[in-house]
Amino acid sequence: MKTKMKILLLACGAALAAGLHAAAPKYVFMFIGDGMGMPQRMVAEDYSRRIGRGPLAMNALPYQCLTRTASANQLITDSAAAATAIACGVKANNGALGVTPDGQRVESVAEIAKGKGMKVGVITTVTIVHATPAAFYAHRKNRGDSYRIALDLVGSGFDFFAGGGVYNKYDDKKDSQYRGNVFDLARAAGYAVVREKAPFLALKPGAGKVWGVFADEGLEFDIDDQDTYPTLKEMVAKGVELLDGPGGFFMMAEGGKVDYAAHANDAATTIKDIIAMDDAVKVARAFLERHPDETLVVVTGDHETGGLAMGFVGTGSKFHIQLLERQKCSTESFMKRIHGMLKENPEMPFETVKPLVTENFGLLFDADDAKMPDDKLLVLSASEIKELEDAYAADVAFVKAKKQETRKHDVRRRQKFAATAKRLLGNHTGVGWSSGAHTALPTTTTAQGCGAEKFIGLMENCDIGRRLKEILR
Amino acid sequence: MKTKMKILLLACGAALAAGLHAAAPKYVFMFIGDGMGMPQRMVAEDYSRRIGRGPLAMNALPYQCLTRTASANQLITDSAAAATAIACGVKANNGALGVTPDGQRVESVAEIAKGKGMKVGVITTVTIVHATPAAFYAHRKNRGDSYRIALDLVGSGFDFFAGGGVYNKYDDKKDSQYRGNVFDLARAAGYAVVREKAPFLALKPGAGKVWGVFADEGLEFDIDDQDTYPTLKEMVAKGVELLDGPGGFFMMAEGGKVDYAAHANDAATTIKDIIAMDDAVKVARAFLERHPDETLVVVTGDHETGGLAMGFVGTGSKFHIQLLERQKCSTESFMKRIHGMLKENPEMPFETVKPLVTENFGLLFDADDAKMPDDKLLVLSASEIKELEDAYAADVAFVKAKKQETRKHDVRRRQKFAATAKRLLGNHTGVGWSSGAHTALPTTTTAQGCGAEKFIGLMENCDIGRRLKEILR
Repeated sequence: MKTKMKILLLACGAALAAGLHAAAPKYVFMFIGDGMGMPQRMVAEDYSRRIGRGPLAMNALPYQCLTRTASANQLITDSAAAATAIACGVKANNGALGVTPDGQRVESVAEIAKGKGMKVGVITTVTIVHATPAAFYAHRKNRGDSYRIALDLVGSGFDFFAGGGVYNKYDDKKDSQYRGNVFDLARAAGYAVVREKAPFLALKPGAGKVWGVFADEGLEFDIDDQDTYPTLKEMVAKGVELLDGPGGFFMMAEGGKVDYAAHANDAATTIKDIIAMDDAVKVARAFLERHPDETLVVVTGDHETGGLAMGFVGTGSKFHIQLLERQKCSTESFMKRIHGMLKENPEMPFETVKPLVTENFGLLFDADDAKMPDDKLLVLSASEIKELEDAYAADVAFVKAKKQETRKHDVRRRQKFAATAKRLLGNHTGVGWSSGAHTALPTTTTAQGCGAEKFIGLMENCDIGRRLKEILR
Repeated sequence: MKTKMKILLLACGAALAAGLHAAAPKYVFMFIGDGMGMPQRMVAEDYSRRIGRGPLAMNALPYQCLTRTASANQLITDSAAAATAIACGVKANNGALGVTPDGQRVESVAEIAKGKGMKVGVITTVTIVHATPAAFYAHRKNRGDSYRIALDLVGSGFDFFAGGGVYNKYDDKKDSQYRGNVFDLARAAGYAVVREKAPFLALKPGAGKVWGVFADEGLEFDIDDQDTYPTLKEMVAKGVELLDGPGGFFMMAEGGKVDYAAHANDAATTIKDIIAMDDAVKVARAFLERHPDETLVVVTGDHETGGLAMGFVGTGSKFHIQLLERQKCSTESFMKRIHGMLKENPEMPFETVKPLVTENFGLLFDADDAKMPDDKLLVLSASEIKELEDAYAADVAFVKAKKQETRKHDVRRRQKFAATAKRLLGNHTGVGWSSGAHTALPTTTTAQGCGAEKFIGLMENCDIGRRLKEILR
């Protein structure tokens, strides 16, 4: 009797499993945090809980896999190889988009979805030709070929693009493959090219193919801007509105600036961009709740950046994550503000900028200013004040010499004052970073909905693309 | 028809689920790596693959959860609160064993197993009264009460203990609860107290209750010793042999010295102790293959130590994990060797110890000595050689002053020479550490077998104990 029951149950289980696997999701949301490794997600988790926002939606998805990110040729991947793995299901060399190490073009999961009659949307907070979004529509050995990648975008036939621009390469007449201004080409291919937030948010279903492009390069960090550009949440919500229909959709949305903040070892800015991304994930989760049997939501990162740790030698066994709430702007925007003031007044004294450090990073120059319990954790020591003063002097000299700011990512070296203020807040918080580059630490992939049960166990980043392809087919 | 089919499948699924959940595992293996956070497991994973050992068994278990480790009163836990969460299913304050923050005693999963008639084993590579093993059998507000914890061990009635000693507290006559020498008490309670490896390995089923205690404190790091003490694998295999029987068993085995190595920021020693633990996990996995329907294997860590990253500012985007194979001993044992030589010859020159640095850490003082492709990654710069020389001079002065080595964990400060050699190898490898203490980075819990499907999603460390209790009941 017991054996018979077992056989019956096994048979039913197999039937059930076959049933589950047979149905492909009609709606797929794929979220990617650039530079959002496992530590970034967990720092944001603790921050969100501590400030009363509650657990992250992205971390609450029931299925979860640690995800190795090594590329075909390096233990530490770049964004192009990582995005190719996720989008196309194969390991690529660093720098390559949608092509294998031996140069073979590999179809992306977005292209497969398009071929099935699903609508496709690609969304990012950085440039739309950046490696992560590009891996879903482009096939180029060199991720730096911005103009040609934009040509692939126009030729993709995808239904919805939203994000930053094409650097200054939208009309690159020097390119040997020049075929015209990419916006003109897009319009000729049937796209409405929308350059401002208001008309973008006013778009209604039936608008046809849309390319929302809101800046020349990336959009702003969430900590710095909530108004000028649409947020990731707004772009995802608009995507859902425009793409929804009988054929279903595949949507990739990237929190692209997480990586920039992590390269700068700017913890508060990193976390706030992840929380902005989590707000977008909540849109997808709400959609899933309305269409539970037909929707799959997957959230991952392309790699870890910065070697972020939730503990620092200077604070020992203490971790005061809530202190990061005191930071009010990114290191980069603080630097721009200070440099702007210095251009007006090159002799501006250190005393003038001290209140700005307190206002924007919460750091206190005088123990008597500590009023609230957490305040005493923010009082600077004499040697830290000296560090800030020396860093400010370096910025004063930098602006006087009228040096060009050339390096995009490394805020620490060219903007000593802002970088020092940010670093000191991180030290008092207990945040540690070991690198200004990508690392081999894994990402976390979480999933919920139709097909999500495939996302268990330790996996390779290319398994994400492979499993998505299996699920869609 | 489609709807009917769906209902049938759902019904079968429910029946199947009920059937699965009704059967408790007969055999439970619980492995805990002390200080083995997610990064430690993944660094060991990449190392094991790169040196040709292949993927870690512990990371290949199909179910996986990132696990938050915050204690009841701190974001950064200590080992006592963490072990209590894992063993008893409740959050405790740092320092407490098997009691809630308001002082209530909470049954451990091992005690529940014992109550069900299963045999119970507790194994560790550190002292058997250390927080992690103790949480499975002791209930004390203060993890430092070694003598009283040993009394709890003797009174537990568990069937098998193996590991290090009781510090120097086995006969603590000053304790107000003194009841006698704990080994005498254990013998009176029916335990065979076994103090050497050979008689321990010769034990046969039917030996009765066993307490294997092989050192006064912890055993050696795996990198330093394979002979004097039984390995974790040997202790687990012996436990299986002695505990197996009609009632089944619950076994907790701790890789306890991972934490010591991580406190010292000693990556090679950390990794090799994790691999030694993985060898023990393979014993459990082989057992699971023989008893697939009746066995549960769970592997977790109690917390992360050191803020370990797989990337370092000095090596940028490169990570040469295989270089750690060049390290042949722990920082601690290297220090002891050098200090021993200095006690014989206080004037021993730097030139004498340079070859020992090359032999034990792979570092090369001369570019001409680089013969193999990886060798050139190990050539020291002039400034690095100066660092080593200065650190050696500090050790020479330390030994001459006949200072006592007092601090247990912080190898970096009291043993400058060994610590510098270890740090330079780490820097060349691309390993980063941000702390000498525990951090709030999560651990990873993996599981396979009967009941393992409960281990999905982000969870709290106390959920491990809770789910194990559910599974056993």
